[in-house]
Amino acid sequence: SDGEFFPNVPKIEYKGEDSKDPLSYRFYNPEEEIMGKKMKDWLRFSVCYWHTFRGKGADPFGFPTMKRHYDDESDSMENAKRRADAAFELFTKLGVEYYTFHDRDIAPEGKTLEESNKNLDEMVDYLMELQKKTGVKLLWGTQNLFSNPRYMNGAFTNPDAHVLAYACSQVKKVLDINHKLGGENLVFWGGREGYQSILNTDIKRECDHMATVFKMALKYKQENNMTAQFLIEPKPREPTKHQYDYDAQTTIAFLHTYGLEKDFKLNIEPNHTTLAGHDFEHDCIISSKYGMLGSIDANTGDPLLGWDTDQFPSDPKKAALVMGAVIDQGGLGSGGLNFDCKVRRESTDDVDLFIGHVGAMDTYARALRIAAKIREEGTLPGMIKERYSSFDSGFGKKVEEGTATLEDCEKYIQENGEPEQRSGKQELYEMILNHYV
Amino acid sequence: SDGEFFPNVPKIEYKGEDSKDPLSYRFYNPEEEIMGKKMKDWLRFSVCYWHTFRGKGADPFGFPTMKRHYDDESDSMENAKRRADAAFELFTKLGVEYYTFHDRDIAPEGKTLEESNKNLDEMVDYLMELQKKTGVKLLWGTQNLFSNPRYMNGAFTNPDAHVLAYACSQVKKVLDINHKLGGENLVFWGGREGYQSILNTDIKRECDHMATVFKMALKYKQENNMTAQFLIEPKPREPTKHQYDYDAQTTIAFLHTYGLEKDFKLNIEPNHTTLAGHDFEHDCIISSKYGMLGSIDANTGDPLLGWDTDQFPSDPKKAALVMGAVIDQGGLGSGGLNFDCKVRRESTDDVDLFIGHVGAMDTYARALRIAAKIREEGTLPGMIKERYSSFDSGFGKKVEEGTATLEDCEKYIQENGEPEQRSGKQELYEMILNHYV
Amino acid sequence: SDGEFFPNVPKIEYKGEDSKDPLSYRFYNPEEEIMGKKMKDWLRFSVCYWHTFRGKGADPFGFPTMKRHYDDESDSMENAKRRADAAFELFTKLGVEYYTFHDRDIAPEGKTLEESNKNLDEMVDYLMELQKKTGVKLLWGTQNLFSNPRYMNGAFTNPDAHVLAYACSQVKKVLDINHKLGGENLVFWGGREGYQSILNTDIKRECDHMATVFKMALKYKQENNMTAQFLIEPKPREPTKHQYDYDAQTTIAFLHTYGLEKDFKLNIEPNHTTLAGHDFEHDCIISSKYGMLGSIDANTGDPLLGWDTDQFPSDPKKAALVMGAVIDQGGLGSGGLNFDCKVRRESTDDVDLFIGHVGAMDTYARALRIAAKIREEGTLPGMIKERYSSFDSGFGKKVEEGTATLEDCEKYIQENGEPEQRSGKQELYEMILNHYV
Amino acid sequence: SDGEFFPNVPKIEYKGEDSKDPLSYRFYNPEEEIMGKKMKDWLRFSVCYWHTFRGKGADPFGFPTMKRHYDDESDSMENAKRRADAAFELFTKLGVEYYTFHDRDIAPEGKTLEESNKNLDEMVDYLMELQKKTGVKLLWGTQNLFSNPRYMNGAFTNPDAHVLAYACSQVKKVLDINHKLGGENLVFWGGREGYQSILNTDIKRECDHMATVFKMALKYKQENNMTAQFLIEPKPREPTKHQYDYDAQTTIAFLHTYGLEKDFKLNIEPNHTTLAGHDFEHDCIISSKYGMLGSIDANTGDPLLGWDTDQFPSDPKKAALVMGAVIDQGGLGSGGLNFDCKVRRESTDDVDLFIGHVGAMDTYARALRIAAKIREEGTLPGMIKERYSSFDSGFGKKVEEGTATLEDCEKYIQENGEPEQRSGKQELYEMILNHYV
Repeated sequence: SDGEFFPNVPKIEYKGEDSKDPLSYRFYNPEEEIMGKKMKDWLRFSVCYWHTFRGKGADPFGFPTMKRHYDDESDSMENAKRRADAAFELFTKLGVEYYTFHDRDIAPEGKTLEESNKNLDEMVDYLMELQKKTGVKLLWGTQNLFSNPRYMNGAFTNPDAHVLAYACSQVKKVLDINHKLGGENLVFWGGREGYQSILNTDIKRECDHMATVFKMALKYKQENNMTAQFLIEPKPREPTKHQYDYDAQTTIAFLHTYGLEKDFKLNIEPNHTTLAGHDFEHDCIISSKYGMLGSIDANTGDPLLGWDTDQFPSDPKKAALVMGAVIDQGGLGSGGLNFDCKVRRESTDDVDLFIGHVGAMDTYARALRIAAKIREEGTLPGMIKERYSSFDSGFGKKVEEGTATLEDCEKYIQENGEPEQRSGKQELYEMILNHYV
Repeated sequence: SDGEFFPNVPKIEYKGEDSKDPLSYRFYNPEEEIMGKKMKDWLRFSVCYWHTFRGKGADPFGFPTMKRHYDDESDSMENAKRRADAAFELFTKLGVEYYTFHDRDIAPEGKTLEESNKNLDEMVDYLMELQKKTGVKLLWGTQNLFSNPRYMNGAFTNPDAHVLAYACSQVKKVLDINHKLGGENLVFWGGREGYQSILNTDIKRECDHMATVFKMALKYKQENNMTAQFLIEPKPREPTKHQYDYDAQTTIAFLHTYGLEKDFKLNIEPNHTTLAGHDFEHDCIISSKYGMLGSIDANTGDPLLGWDTDQFPSDPKKAALVMGAVIDQGGLGSGGLNFDCKVRRESTDDVDLFIGHVGAMDTYARALRIAAKIREEGTLPGMIKERYSSFDSGFGKKVEEGTATLEDCEKYIQENGEPEQRSGKQELYEMILNHYV
Repeated sequence: SDGEFFPNVPKIEYKGEDSKDPLSYRFYNPEEEIMGKKMKDWLRFSVCYWHTFRGKGADPFGFPTMKRHYDDESDSMENAKRRADAAFELFTKLGVEYYTFHDRDIAPEGKTLEESNKNLDEMVDYLMELQKKTGVKLLWGTQNLFSNPRYMNGAFTNPDAHVLAYACSQVKKVLDINHKLGGENLVFWGGREGYQSILNTDIKRECDHMATVFKMALKYKQENNMTAQFLIEPKPREPTKHQYDYDAQTTIAFLHTYGLEKDFKLNIEPNHTTLAGHDFEHDCIISSKYGMLGSIDANTGDPLLGWDTDQFPSDPKKAALVMGAVIDQGGLGSGGLNFDCKVRRESTDDVDLFIGHVGAMDTYARALRIAAKIREEGTLPGMIKERYSSFDSGFGKKVEEGTATLEDCEKYIQENGEPEQRSGKQELYEMILNHYV
Repeated sequence: SDGEFFPNVPKIEYKGEDSKDPLSYRFYNPEEEIMGKKMKDWLRFSVCYWHTFRGKGADPFGFPTMKRHYDDESDSMENAKRRADAAFELFTKLGVEYYTFHDRDIAPEGKTLEESNKNLDEMVDYLMELQKKTGVKLLWGTQNLFSNPRYMNGAFTNPDAHVLAYACSQVKKVLDINHKLGGENLVFWGGREGYQSILNTDIKRECDHMATVFKMALKYKQENNMTAQFLIEPKPREPTKHQYDYDAQTTIAFLHTYGLEKDFKLNIEPNHTTLAGHDFEHDCIISSKYGMLGSIDANTGDPLLGWDTDQFPSDPKKAALVMGAVIDQGGLGSGGLNFDCKVRRESTDDVDLFIGHVGAMDTYARALRIAAKIREEGTLPGMIKERYSSFDSGFGKKVEEGTATLEDCEKYIQENGEPEQRSGKQELYEMILNHYV
């Protein structure tokens, strides 16, 4: 038989491009080598616990639509464990080696901090066993500092120091359990670190507090010899009107301003990137170029919708631009491609959970093949290199080396006059890219 | 008589709130003191040369609509001087003490750099005379690195070093003439410093070059004992698809990354801010809070339009949030409120140039009165102060001082349990603000 | 004492513009006559039941924040009645004469249709009593066809006829109870009548079904001698990706296509209008001009946010453009200004419910005063009339009468040549409008 | 040799999917039959005159970038003819059988209407010869009522009847020349038929005038036995803030309101569709479903940019949704796929004109193959049919036939109770679509 929770779903296998079986991979062949590395090591897929095991299809206008036979919707520890069992069956059948969670996803929040922490401890032991049994690893843990009403005015940036203290207590606990479970990173998403109205907000004081908390967390990490890479996940808005970690570069500005730029990288979510007005791939590429791309929440949004839809990605061309950046930086390091995605609330069958992941994994596997082929054939990279070649020697090289002056520039023009026009050839680049997709 | 160029427009006078004369100020009373400073010194109004004296109403779908009797539309020096005469008549009649220009606004571009520079020199002498005669001063000059086709692929970030050299030659000249004319600032707007397609672009190499040019300019400034404050003007897009100086915080990230944060401030344009997805006032406030607000291009856009409309502002409530930030930082320093605004292309009467400025100046003058009254009465500032008062003593103060640890936080919660809920009261803040508007 | 449920809130009184009491009206003086009609009869304010008595501050990222001492959050009839009592105390203290509801707001949904209907019957009797006792009237009722999971794929446009049948059963019941309670209108909001993905959707067949249901409802209305005005409320998206009633004109297209244009008017919500890419006032004005403005859900959104925020309005200038349209059509008829608004989820005090409404009512009362003054003074209307005066006689009049031909036009140009240029003077219009605000 | 104007560009041939020659088709094989029709007859490609032969790369921030050796940029008739020769060489080398123009694209505007018309007559004779020689046909002509300053306040909706008369004179002439050249359609794009500010605008009177002009044009068409299909091209905004023909359904509302729905179809431009907040394919599909899809301006925009970029399309998946609608309605009738596209202003080489078209034609040819294969294999269409099958018999069929009542619906629920839940399976549809792309 095929397991306890999803008996009708087999282990998903690679069957090649012509397969019409929706429960097979057409492009993802985990052990296949691409550019000197196994596909699974380039892609480092991860399933997220919240959407796939805690999300039930509620939206601002409707009640939950999804019933799972393994989830009685109670807050009992027994239910929490049964959900974990189901989760690891899904991870294993998909062949995904990583997962991610918020503290409140895996264990019920208690009436007090102590009770919540006790629940966490029990579940962490349980997850440890499941990890050992299956070989599935923790990509990262994070603290949920946005669902509980106490955080309505912010967590690290709450006007009330008492709430900040509560948030920090959660951070401390997550640092501990993440370490225990071997979490390779630890994510900070400041969902309510921002403002609804600038009229009642002291934004400078709030940002100062946020930086202070990050410093406390770093200190605790160092004192306890923890190694998880700290990651900040930018988002421009929702639930707040304006979130302080608006996008990759706003977050980099924050880190530099407070001297934190060496201790943090970014966890980029394309759906957040498009909400900030940038292309799907932009924040991945810009972070990567500045050595700040730590991990990716590999979802997609709808460019015409103004909220986070967290959809499973299905556009190999867009994904190929992301995988290109990943290849160019030599891989994701301790990060991964985490499916911060939810099946649509109308996709209510259990099997839809698998279909969503299989489609997304194949989208990124196809993207990896495309990006690798582009680099191996070299046409597009060569065109770009040639385009900037005036900086490889002579006057241009002097500019790159930082030794040219304004006077040198003027002299160069006096001697060489007007530059020649060179076409940017965008349509040609687009056409050639289509050869690979 | 009333001048040569606008004979039917009198000197605009303050006539008080009940005036129905569109050629009078209802709120702007330049010498009146508000919070210890003259209105004109808080507001430091400036007229821009390009929209008001070079813009003629062309748009992407239509030819110019505006004829000016003082502009024969030739590229002659005589025409350039007549335009300058008209400009100074307008400045004087409005009672505005500052103006701003791009190099190509004031003097025709020649066939060679030498010829362009010669034209500039002649016009600079002419403007010096007009400045002396009228007392009008130069708020800032800047280089036009976007109109000429040579800059189609960027100026400082052009893939061709030859173009970069040309752009730097223009910068050198503008540094010189700005200094000669006593320009209090110098602005860099990177209109084409960005990309149309990420497919043909090496964004890291381009940003490196941009930083290198800024360093050349700083060196030249220092070596020549110039004092103008350098300002960068962010804009998210248009004409490029993505501009590297996307918004205030992206620009701050750039400055920190390249070690330039001490030598530059920002020139914030609200229309650019809303194009980046932020409220009108956001980039002014965030820049101000981090000591980076240098000057303001006091226009407005339409939040439903996706392009720069550069409209004259007419919303005193929005402007009051900006003036609040200006008051809180003690004034604009060497900066000003520069009307980077154009009359609509359908507003073709000469007098519309005056009406646009009078309406905008009154909007900001009214805004100053509102913002000052809010501070003098103290209700809203007091509510905000009270909201954060838990950080003024005890545990909260320890957090602000940076001496609290995660362990302290946890201990605080163990002792004090769940925080009390405190309403954010946004509707009350909005209601009270309406008392002042 | 001041009532059972909000003991600390007095009856809200008009205290004039200088009042600093947040629980007083500065502009709303219900019995005062403006342009021949009492303020309350121009404004016809209405409180909505769902946000103010059923909303608790949940958002997509957070649990409810609001506790009401009169609501034990159970699904009991007793609780439903206590909420109704509290609601009528709020209506009465505000001095609002209308309210609105969805069927599921006022009575708990049962396990079967019969049980739900039985609950409704009991609550309708209860509300009848409260209406009689207080004089508060029902502006409109509507059916909730979006919250229950059965409607996840649409109600009237569900691919399953079974679901359509269920939706129609609810409509039938709401027609009955709305009639019984004297509801002056009946609203259809097609929250899930649209698509999430065009890939799985037959949009034509779905729209045909929607029209068929409207015809069934009309037939039932006529056969039962009901008089409520049917209203459709457009919205572009959310919860669906694309809603068929996108905006006012899309809905008018639908009504015409299916021959329903005489039997329906529109209920316009400014927040939905801005989500569709139009200005706050646009859909009110365009509907009004074509005789289709039936009622207004008087809220506001944030033009930079891509979802429905349903905020209490606080911009008198925008509201004045809406009230201008209302004055121009002689009033709202059977419609009203219904506050489809919710206090922010951070505004958790009971009194915030009052502050939100008081601020909004004053915004619209101030707007009415502004719009009336503009019409009474006549400056702006006169400028517009003059602008189009070429159509009042001669050739222009012939065009308006529909008797001119293309040949006439050509002849006119042959005789008269090029037209003179006339400035649109937008800045002057904006300046003059500011005189009134 | 390969022609006079583009000597280095050969006739573009179909070379199959593996071709790496940018001047070859990989997918477009004009004579190949797909679903019973030649590819060229499904696609009916058309080149537009304005972008490709009159556009020179100016943008709101920059001067023209493109020099064409065959265009001396004068307004002479000789130059106009040389441009026409070059155009027909490009049409022929691409193998495109249709073209489109505005009156002012093909012949210089004169000082008077008479002079303009005389220029047109001369050029029409010239084009007739070129059409005969090459077999290239006119898809549609249209009148430019937006570039000349006289139209700054609108053409058909201008507040000045004199301007309306001028616009109508142009319409009359275009009707004549379009007829003479065998134009199969005639397009109305109301670029300035809208408002910049609602404050100075009587929108009802303006829309009435627009309808009146359409009626004059219809009358003239009928009286002169012309057969061109009239088409309206919707656009939401730009150059105006709000254009009356906002999108497909707004335009349909307008046509119905004024009784014009039988005499007009729509010319849909995907870039305009996305500017209106809809998906690329939405307006094509919705128009098609209601029998209103007349022709397509086959370009694309950038969903993150708020202005019309008129790019050559390069996304076969999006284009396949459009071609699916075209197949489902049995072809485009008298319409075509007109490339209302411009090469980027940085794409300054002559050959870029070809590369842009070749890439776009291949995108749509590939799309046709995808859409046909989806229909031939039948998997996706079958899933949709099954999804709505409850309406094919029994109660559902009664609903479709319009004979069910609300009472029937209630009875159905009383007998059948709660419907079963059926998953929408969006992820499965997306995955299967990816099999074809």
